[in-house]
Amino acid sequence: MIKIAVVHGPNLDLLGLREPALYGTHTLEQINEAMNGEAKQIGAELRITHSNHEGEIVEAVHDAHQWAQGIVINAAAYTHTSVAIRDAIEAVRLPTVEVHLSNVHAREAFRQRSLIAEVCAGQISGFGAMSYLLALRALMYLVRQAAAE
Amino acid sequence: MIKIAVVHGPNLDLLGLREPALYGTHTLEQINEAMNGEAKQIGAELRITHSNHEGEIVEAVHDAHQWAQGIVINAAAYTHTSVAIRDAIEAVRLPTVEVHLSNVHAREAFRQRSLIAEVCAGQISGFGAMSYLLALRALMYLVRQAAAE
Amino acid sequence: MIKIAVVHGPNLDLLGLREPALYGTHTLEQINEAMNGEAKQIGAELRITHSNHEGEIVEAVHDAHQWAQGIVINAAAYTHTSVAIRDAIEAVRLPTVEVHLSNVHAREAFRQRSLIAEVCAGQISGFGAMSYLLALRALMYLVRQAAAE
Amino acid sequence: MIKIAVVHGPNLDLLGLREPALYGTHTLEQINEAMNGEAKQIGAELRITHSNHEGEIVEAVHDAHQWAQGIVINAAAYTHTSVAIRDAIEAVRLPTVEVHLSNVHAREAFRQRSLIAEVCAGQISGFGAMSYLLALRALMYLVRQAAAE
Amino acid sequence: MIKIAVVHGPNLDLLGLREPALYGTHTLEQINEAMNGEAKQIGAELRITHSNHEGEIVEAVHDAHQWAQGIVINAAAYTHTSVAIRDAIEAVRLPTVEVHLSNVHAREAFRQRSLIAEVCAGQISGFGAMSYLLALRALMYLVRQAAAE
Amino acid sequence: MIKIAVVHGPNLDLLGLREPALYGTHTLEQINEAMNGEAKQIGAELRITHSNHEGEIVEAVHDAHQWAQGIVINAAAYTHTSVAIRDAIEAVRLPTVEVHLSNVHAREAFRQRSLIAEVCAGQISGFGAMSYLLALRALMYLVRQAAAE
Amino acid sequence: MIKIAVVHGPNLDLLGLREPALYGTHTLEQINEAMNGEAKQIGAELRITHSNHEGEIVEAVHDAHQWAQGIVINAAAYTHTSVAIRDAIEAVRLPTVEVHLSNVHAREAFRQRSLIAEVCAGQISGFGAMSYLLALRALMYLVRQAAAE
Amino acid sequence: MIKIAVVHGPNLDLLGLREPALYGTHTLEQINEAMNGEAKQIGAELRITHSNHEGEIVEAVHDAHQWAQGIVINAAAYTHTSVAIRDAIEAVRLPTVEVHLSNVHAREAFRQRSLIAEVCAGQISGFGAMSYLLALRALMYLVRQAAAE
Amino acid sequence: MIKIAVVHGPNLDLLGLREPALYGTHTLEQINEAMNGEAKQIGAELRITHSNHEGEIVEAVHDAHQWAQGIVINAAAYTHTSVAIRDAIEAVRLPTVEVHLSNVHAREAFRQRSLIAEVCAGQISGFGAMSYLLALRALMYLVRQAAAE
Amino acid sequence: MIKIAVVHGPNLDLLGLREPALYGTHTLEQINEAMNGEAKQIGAELRITHSNHEGEIVEAVHDAHQWAQGIVINAAAYTHTSVAIRDAIEAVRLPTVEVHLSNVHAREAFRQRSLIAEVCAGQISGFGAMSYLLALRALMYLVRQAAAE
Amino acid sequence: MIKIAVVHGPNLDLLGLREPALYGTHTLEQINEAMNGEAKQIGAELRITHSNHEGEIVEAVHDAHQWAQGIVINAAAYTHTSVAIRDAIEAVRLPTVEVHLSNVHAREAFRQRSLIAEVCAGQISGFGAMSYLLALRALMYLVRQAAAE
Amino acid sequence: MIKIAVVHGPNLDLLGLREPALYGTHTLEQINEAMNGEAKQIGAELRITHSNHEGEIVEAVHDAHQWAQGIVINAAAYTHTSVAIRDAIEAVRLPTVEVHLSNVHAREAFRQRSLIAEVCAGQISGFGAMSYLLALRALMYLVRQAAAE
Repeated sequence: MIKIAVVHGPNLDLLGLREPALYGTHTLEQINEAMNGEAKQIGAELRITHSNHEGEIVEAVHDAHQWAQGIVINAAAYTHTSVAIRDAIEAVRLPTVEVHLSNVHAREAFRQRSLIAEVCAGQISGFGAMSYLLALRALMYLVRQAAAE
Repeated sequence: MIKIAVVHGPNLDLLGLREPALYGTHTLEQINEAMNGEAKQIGAELRITHSNHEGEIVEAVHDAHQWAQGIVINAAAYTHTSVAIRDAIEAVRLPTVEVHLSNVHAREAFRQRSLIAEVCAGQISGFGAMSYLLALRALMYLVRQAAAE
Repeated sequence: MIKIAVVHGPNLDLLGLREPALYGTHTLEQINEAMNGEAKQIGAELRITHSNHEGEIVEAVHDAHQWAQGIVINAAAYTHTSVAIRDAIEAVRLPTVEVHLSNVHAREAFRQRSLIAEVCAGQISGFGAMSYLLALRALMYLVRQAAAE
Repeated sequence: MIKIAVVHGPNLDLLGLREPALYGTHTLEQINEAMNGEAKQIGAELRITHSNHEGEIVEAVHDAHQWAQGIVINAAAYTHTSVAIRDAIEAVRLPTVEVHLSNVHAREAFRQRSLIAEVCAGQISGFGAMSYLLALRALMYLVRQAAAE
Repeated sequence: MIKIAVVHGPNLDLLGLREPALYGTHTLEQINEAMNGEAKQIGAELRITHSNHEGEIVEAVHDAHQWAQGIVINAAAYTHTSVAIRDAIEAVRLPTVEVHLSNVHAREAFRQRSLIAEVCAGQISGFGAMSYLLALRALMYLVRQAAAE
Repeated sequence: MIKIAVVHGPNLDLLGLREPALYGTHTLEQINEAMNGEAKQIGAELRITHSNHEGEIVEAVHDAHQWAQGIVINAAAYTHTSVAIRDAIEAVRLPTVEVHLSNVHAREAFRQRSLIAEVCAGQISGFGAMSYLLALRALMYLVRQAAAE
Repeated sequence: MIKIAVVHGPNLDLLGLREPALYGTHTLEQINEAMNGEAKQIGAELRITHSNHEGEIVEAVHDAHQWAQGIVINAAAYTHTSVAIRDAIEAVRLPTVEVHLSNVHAREAFRQRSLIAEVCAGQISGFGAMSYLLALRALMYLVRQAAAE
Repeated sequence: MIKIAVVHGPNLDLLGLREPALYGTHTLEQINEAMNGEAKQIGAELRITHSNHEGEIVEAVHDAHQWAQGIVINAAAYTHTSVAIRDAIEAVRLPTVEVHLSNVHAREAFRQRSLIAEVCAGQISGFGAMSYLLALRALMYLVRQAAAE
Repeated sequence: MIKIAVVHGPNLDLLGLREPALYGTHTLEQINEAMNGEAKQIGAELRITHSNHEGEIVEAVHDAHQWAQGIVINAAAYTHTSVAIRDAIEAVRLPTVEVHLSNVHAREAFRQRSLIAEVCAGQISGFGAMSYLLALRALMYLVRQAAAE
Repeated sequence: MIKIAVVHGPNLDLLGLREPALYGTHTLEQINEAMNGEAKQIGAELRITHSNHEGEIVEAVHDAHQWAQGIVINAAAYTHTSVAIRDAIEAVRLPTVEVHLSNVHAREAFRQRSLIAEVCAGQISGFGAMSYLLALRALMYLVRQAAAE
Repeated sequence: MIKIAVVHGPNLDLLGLREPALYGTHTLEQINEAMNGEAKQIGAELRITHSNHEGEIVEAVHDAHQWAQGIVINAAAYTHTSVAIRDAIEAVRLPTVEVHLSNVHAREAFRQRSLIAEVCAGQISGFGAMSYLLALRALMYLVRQAAAE
Repeated sequence: MIKIAVVHGPNLDLLGLREPALYGTHTLEQINEAMNGEAKQIGAELRITHSNHEGEIVEAVHDAHQWAQGIVINAAAYTHTSVAIRDAIEAVRLPTVEVHLSNVHAREAFRQRSLIAEVCAGQISGFGAMSYLLALRALMYLVRQAAAE
């Protein structure tokens, strides 16, 4: 079983409530369930964290260093403003997949700059809850590819 | 009675100490008292929060969604750097008034950009403690106007 | 009685006609009446000017220097393009409150730069006709505070 | 007969004098005559205004709201600096054609930004006096197309 | 008879299909027919080319050098990205009129920069299929004016 | 069976040769095989096109309009320079997934701007050949979701 | 006698009142007297205009075309915002000297851009009322030099 | 004994782990020990705080106001994004030395802007753990110099 | 014999016709002859391609990978707009010399940015047809130097 | 007698040779003679230095501190690139007049930024050799005005 | 004994005279004495150079290459404008510490860009003469650390 | 014999020492010898100057005006910062070839701007010592071509 840290950033606890046209009608709980289901199928075990606090997300990334083989992160608003989360990801040196529910590249200019992209392996954005499931698969691929080297 | 969430951002707990020429000589307690006084006069009930933490302010906004009919927020420094607070305000869809003690438009360039302005109904800046009292009146007007529609 | 100059800028004579969703359904006459009503209550006497001409607004500000104790100004489009009105306000050294009907900070980029903000005491924007009434209160507070010093 | 307001902006009274290589050798009177001739042919009646004053152009646009079915405007220098004229055009909601004698897109950088373009239906530039005649035809087309809807 | 090359750029073959609210409901064939009709009236003979390929448009412009007295070009998307088409127009030194169906000056920022404007005589934008007909008239005027010199 | 157009842009025919550290060691043929395999599993039928020509990619997108239910596109270098491909995607109104082999957000500044992102549903980048397989799944999800509405 | 048009721009009627530390203690009348005195000594005759209206300054420049041999202009705030005055100066083709009381190059960024500098012969700034007297001498030199050619 | 608050920002708890080539091989504990050793020699007493939370750093600065005579701060990632920490330092008005382990001026563009530099007395960057020891000496010098005035 | 691919970009087939003051009076055929003459003298064999199509130039570069030891390329207008040609040059990893007839560094701003310079060994610009002859010599030097290593 | 340091910057020794249309036909010797003549008339004594070396100009300014009451400087090209000369002028605290032969505000963008303007009292540009004579008068005025205070 | 080159840049010979509030009251001689005293204590031998000439500073850096083990440089104004000094430091490959008396990061925008920072090991700014003493210690640390490797 | 001034700029005296991977292993003496050899072959006589001082390079250019028929200049670091050298080259009006050892267009952004390119005939960069030899040939071509006119 490959262990994966999943980190949800600020305001994601409002999913289902917040702009359904943009973010879909699933709640965070439903997304987490779907992820756990997908994880089972593909041989992964997840620990899922959510926080509205930049510092807690930094620490969730630090923490992953102790036990996880990769990270799936939707840093939400902090994607665009946090050098601290970027530095955390860079420091723990785990393969990391950046996820967004909406297609951030098609939204406001300030959402088109990701401070963490440079330290992530790749990015998946725009498919709602499906973005997370694809990210799990992408991360599994990266972890297995690295193991094979 | 109309219920209003009042949210004070970082460093406002130092009011009275910090640059009195710019921010006035009132402490945050005195401002809160004045607001409560004004609230009584105009038929409002306030719940006032202060935090130096971006995440807590995000959550104070989330929380308002449960019980308040509007928000008065002085996000202070986070006004200029927080996409997370912006997203929170946008998500809860309550009428929100942005307040500043000083006239931010007459200060450093980085204080002239408000990340939350686009999701607030209006802004009041430059009148010290009085900014808050005017904001309460403005918010009452918005809430009543919405109710009348 | 405190004497206040109220200055309305270009296109405000079209109020009621122009984009009601954005600027409200009140005409300029109705706003002026509301202001005169509010003024009576708070001990102020108003002289209200409207002009579509930048030069006349400059001169209305000059003129206020002779008799007024403060200025409430909605420079409308000239807010974003007029150094001349800025210089006039700076020259007469009267406490001045900048007013906008709509929340200019949430509109086109060119409306987010106010050339007069730096020489005004504060700004109120986004509350329709109510912006003016709040501005009168704000100005009264500034004038009385100055008198008290 | 379709009624059209034609508005000439600053310095156009110098036509014939000013840089003939750039603006042609026709005077404003000659252009107006040509326009009236063209108007007759295509079933339009013109009221032509010229002003060097931004405020008067704002008011000419307001005025058109009373009687005209469309506007042809060469705001000249104010094209690049006037938010007030833009707001006026937007407010009166008449189909408006922006005209330039010279090809402004091939000149100084500051002439390549038109503040009014966003609120006009279309733009014709670079054909000297002929630009106006084409603009009349374009406007007629727009007015008739709208009537047909 | 004056000979005119008409060049249509990328995606114009989809006209009628593509965003009718923005580009109108006419197909390219219908526009071409209308142009041929107009040409007859004003004494012009047209050769009309369409291509989705930048290089073919460059060569259509080269080709015009052999036989045409002027060019009407709607370079569509290439207007904003092609230095090659610009250089071609500059090289053949034929009077050229730039056409756009929509008012590009009122759209996305990247559509407001025309790389070819500097080497064209003038521009007509925003009148749908009518833009082309006006462009033919404008070009006839330029050709005849040049011949008269 | 859901029909999907897969479009490969310039230089992708060199895959395997070009900077393997960045783009992986798979050739385009191998990627295409893997995609066909994946397609079978998830109920899709692919038509795969490769071109180094911007105009041909525009036409491949047009062509998809006749028969496909969605598009997977790696526009490669044209991602950053082609308004024409953007306009094509926007015109055909099919759900489209943008793919990149490398994590373009972590590379040169000019690769961080995607001109097509705004008209695509979502984007997957950074996972080498795996990016395409994930894109197929993402597109299937979008097509089925749309069908379910 | 050489005839010179002297044009004073907005807010200069407040001289003596406005920020004496920056603009000096002389009133506009005193400056005009000093200029007339200087003019007599150097063989010039002045017609002095002041206006707070951009359009009137445009027309004062037009008017100079009828009778003057040169222009001394302090366009004040309009220096930084008026393309119309620039176009007027360019059109009348009289040698023109740009004057500023304060050293605009040492002030706010927006005062460091002069829209009229490109169409003036030269500029004198920073010497208070003395700037005007030097400008008269400079203009006389230009006019005589031109006459000598 | 002079009392000094030492504040470590986000990710510094990973020192030794994170990019040793850039940040050195010392852990934060070792740096703290070295600082305490140095402090004894130069007559200072330290209270050392570390936090990954912006809000806690703001409060550590507030807290220093009660008991410290100066601050040594390595705000790490928050150096580049936090207006809140800047406002806190400005508010408490204690001499403050900004420290960086790496030479931030030689790294990514976003690390070359320090939001706190303007409110600090000076900055030391690029000497690894040694930067802190030099900062203690620099702060002692500032505190003693201030006391001597 | 060292084999060299020479690639001419868009509009170069017009040489002799296009702005002789800028590009000289030689036709492309004459330049090719001169190059073949020079090649013989210095021991090189050339295959010369010209295309107005970006995609064909990409493919000419790909093709060189099969047989050439170096490339001389004048990408003309595509120099400033083509990421695709840049990627092609980077992928084939042959020493490449960038040539320009005119001194692009002394022309319009958009011609001063070369997207291909970063992947070429060096650049020669400004000497008309002579630029190509110098480029051949430069490339021979690079190829021989590489062979000697 | 008031003592004035006159400092000429780089390339001014070529006057008469260099672009006479722009800089006039006078040599530097002739300008110096004219200045000495003017100085006698207005009660000043000059020491004139010329250097092509930035460091020597810095030292000429330092030197003036020992004996002069003011400085007239034409820093020529160094005007736009030298912080060192700026710092020198600021340090010696003598009233300084900035001179330019040509109207730098009407030339290339890089000549429109003066690094020394902020530390000079005023600027005179555009009148050829006459600029220097006016500058002497301006400086005399400043020195006498300061003496009178 | 470790040998260190100390290089002082332009205007530092005026220390004590120039803005004491900003740069302190010590003369350069006093700073040099203090440095020599500190050097003895920490086992260093200094050769100190001052020049107002960019070229001489370049050569002082070259010269250090012959005999020194490290460089302490306060390039003063040239810090912000000299690529030549940057190239010199980069070429000699000695550990170099950048010093500033004032906190350049808190001053004018043009002083916040250091062209030499990227080729220095670290930077110390804001502590007046003390900056130099700290820089000696920092450099000793770097030299010894390098020797230990 | 054609006489050519060769001017080497700052830090080129370190060649062979400085970053051999970038600048090659030849010393400046070796390059000079190679140039003299090449000169003999092509009928040129060289005077070669090197200086680290901007002012001396300015004067070397002035000096060339007396005796040379063209200039080959590698202004090195001053290429990017010196308006003075630009003005010198422009003033002497000799055909001038700009040389760079490395391909400056592929390096740091600040090296991609050449202040002298606009006043040179052409540029050769990226071929190490060979760049100079090619520049001699290029210059000979320019001089002979000019003589032939």
